Amino acid sequence: MAVNTRAPRIERTGRSGPTIHDVARVAEVSISTASKALNRKGSLRPETRDRVLAVVKAIGYRPNELAQSLHSARSKTVGLITNDSFGRFSFPIFEALEETLADQGIAVFMCNATDDPVRERQHLDQLMRKRIDGLVVTARRADKRPALSALVPGVPVVYVYSQADDPNTSCLVPDDEGGARLAVTHLVGQGRHRIAHISGPKRFEAVRLRQAGYRAALRAAGIAYDPSLHVNGEWSESWGRSAVAGLFDRAGAKPDALFCDNDQLARGASDALRERGIAVPKDVAIVGFDNWEVMALGARPPLSSVDMNLHALGREAGAALLAIMAGEPVTGIRRLPCSLIVRESSACEPRAVNLQAKPKQRVGSP
Amino acid sequence: MAVNTRAPRIERTGRSGPTIHDVARVAEVSISTASKALNRKGSLRPETRDRVLAVVKAIGYRPNELAQSLHSARSKTVGLITNDSFGRFSFPIFEALEETLADQGIAVFMCNATDDPVRERQHLDQLMRKRIDGLVVTARRADKRPALSALVPGVPVVYVYSQADDPNTSCLVPDDEGGARLAVTHLVGQGRHRIAHISGPKRFEAVRLRQAGYRAALRAAGIAYDPSLHVNGEWSESWGRSAVAGLFDRAGAKPDALFCDNDQLARGASDALRERGIAVPKDVAIVGFDNWEVMALGARPPLSSVDMNLHALGREAGAALLAIMAGEPVTGIRRLPCSLIVRESSACEPRAVNLQAKPKQRVGSP
Repeated sequence: MAVNTRAPRIERTGRSGPTIHDVARVAEVSISTASKALNRKGSLRPETRDRVLAVVKAIGYRPNELAQSLHSARSKTVGLITNDSFGRFSFPIFEALEETLADQGIAVFMCNATDDPVRERQHLDQLMRKRIDGLVVTARRADKRPALSALVPGVPVVYVYSQADDPNTSCLVPDDEGGARLAVTHLVGQGRHRIAHISGPKRFEAVRLRQAGYRAALRAAGIAYDPSLHVNGEWSESWGRSAVAGLFDRAGAKPDALFCDNDQLARGASDALRERGIAVPKDVAIVGFDNWEVMALGARPPLSSVDMNLHALGREAGAALLAIMAGEPVTGIRRLPCSLIVRESSACEPRAVNLQAKPKQRVGSP
Repeated sequence: MAVNTRAPRIERTGRSGPTIHDVARVAEVSISTASKALNRKGSLRPETRDRVLAVVKAIGYRPNELAQSLHSARSKTVGLITNDSFGRFSFPIFEALEETLADQGIAVFMCNATDDPVRERQHLDQLMRKRIDGLVVTARRADKRPALSALVPGVPVVYVYSQADDPNTSCLVPDDEGGARLAVTHLVGQGRHRIAHISGPKRFEAVRLRQAGYRAALRAAGIAYDPSLHVNGEWSESWGRSAVAGLFDRAGAKPDALFCDNDQLARGASDALRERGIAVPKDVAIVGFDNWEVMALGARPPLSSVDMNLHALGREAGAALLAIMAGEPVTGIRRLPCSLIVRESSACEPRAVNLQAKPKQRVGSP
């Protein structure tokens, strides 16, 4: 399972010549800044606007296409369908999407389908009656779901923290494998060699990818994979505690670090270690996943955790939707980098401990 | 501080004669069922429809008013402005509002103002351009905020889990005092007499009301209020742990129960007791607030907690909005009852412990 096969992939079809993406990249600005400069809207510094327009000229981009497409938009409204009843994953995506599209005067209309296909269909009917200009689909988990395009003919669709079972769709998900590699590489860097992986249910694609990342990072560090250090269970603190019982109450060498597939597992594991008199991070370092602050900061010591950068996913979903609305169909699955937030649960060196005065230290994805 | 001053208060102005509320109450159906029967819309059992129409005739309700008002609705769209970036309180309200208004073919358009008045104003402008038929305002806390009516002239507004500083508005909030009385009365019923109150920051109205409820319940049980058992701090597990240290590490009689103003405080308190070798619930019973399942079920043992019934608040907000749209201005603050979810942290009797096989036991508000 080579690491490179998981590299971000972007396929574009249906248009040749430079795109708004190219303008933004060359001018080193965001898509929304580029389009503001092109449309002479919003507040931009004159030098930024001039730089964008110079790039437009230099690379031969025809700026009126985006403007025309947006001009013909029917309602300046985009629908967001979510199946995340807790709102924990959807809310940051919703916020970022709102921010990105507000620059274009486009409002986001969120609907909650609660995993009920009938309700989802009703929402889509309602959105179509409101003549939405685009649709964003999100969920509580990033696994594949039936595509919705046939139900919203003519409307651009982007999936974020969600994937459609149709390769002609545009999907944005976190790079779960990269996130796991970040975590495990960090633990190796802290001198840990018996790193256990406390995993979620295998039916989640994210769980399978994170295990692949865990194994890739071990391989890169020259550490042999030990199947007895990898355990799968449910998404609960209780399973985190049981997993620690299984790993530490048996005979043989004990783990010196735990990589956990979410912060609830890490929290349960951390509590179970404390009750065994095992010191975190001195004896066992811990890294969780999700950077769910209420869990991560409630633990003692606070948990290091992989952040899926949901805001960045939401912003990119907005940019992808704008690009499609501007006539640049974007298809394929893009996996955006995760970050690692290092807190005390995995930072053993005096220097790292001092960093806790500042609450966070962000480490970029590899 | 008399208990009765906190009784729900509903004031109606601008209309005499029976209202849709009266029809619904007499026919023993929901507002939305009553209006479906009146509008001959949606799927209703014939006997339900007949009962509603019989009530309409009996009490002399003029049914065409609601129908006319809804008929003249401009966009079949209602805006929901939230200032709850976590979505923890807003999401259940949003769901229930969607469910209630979907019966009328009205969609809910959620916007996130993130406590930024400029952004809130932009959202309101956008909603007005979309010609919304009504506006619901919610937040992360139920305290008073500046009224928005002047910014949305002619549009009915309802505040839910939020209050406006204008008595002519319609506000729906949980009955925090009643919820606290439920919790403390339950603890007294479990034979506890030294009940400590681990409280949140006093600047929250909810904190002040919950303290009033705590004291009212003690008074009703003939237990003298002991100020040394009441401590205020921040909304964190860490403060829950510190509070336990303060209450249990000092000389003198120890508490035999803890009432905590949210589940994070209760969770921290529960952990701190375990580490002192104090058994929950045998030595000390605990009740939290919010019934935030991820916290309440993660604790050992699972936490009893007061549920603010956010879904019911959302449904009532929808009904109030429909009533106002139908020409029945509803003003004043309504405090809806909380429920108590009894789990192992406060259930000592064998019978109560057996109830844990079923996850929940709901006890209605007094």
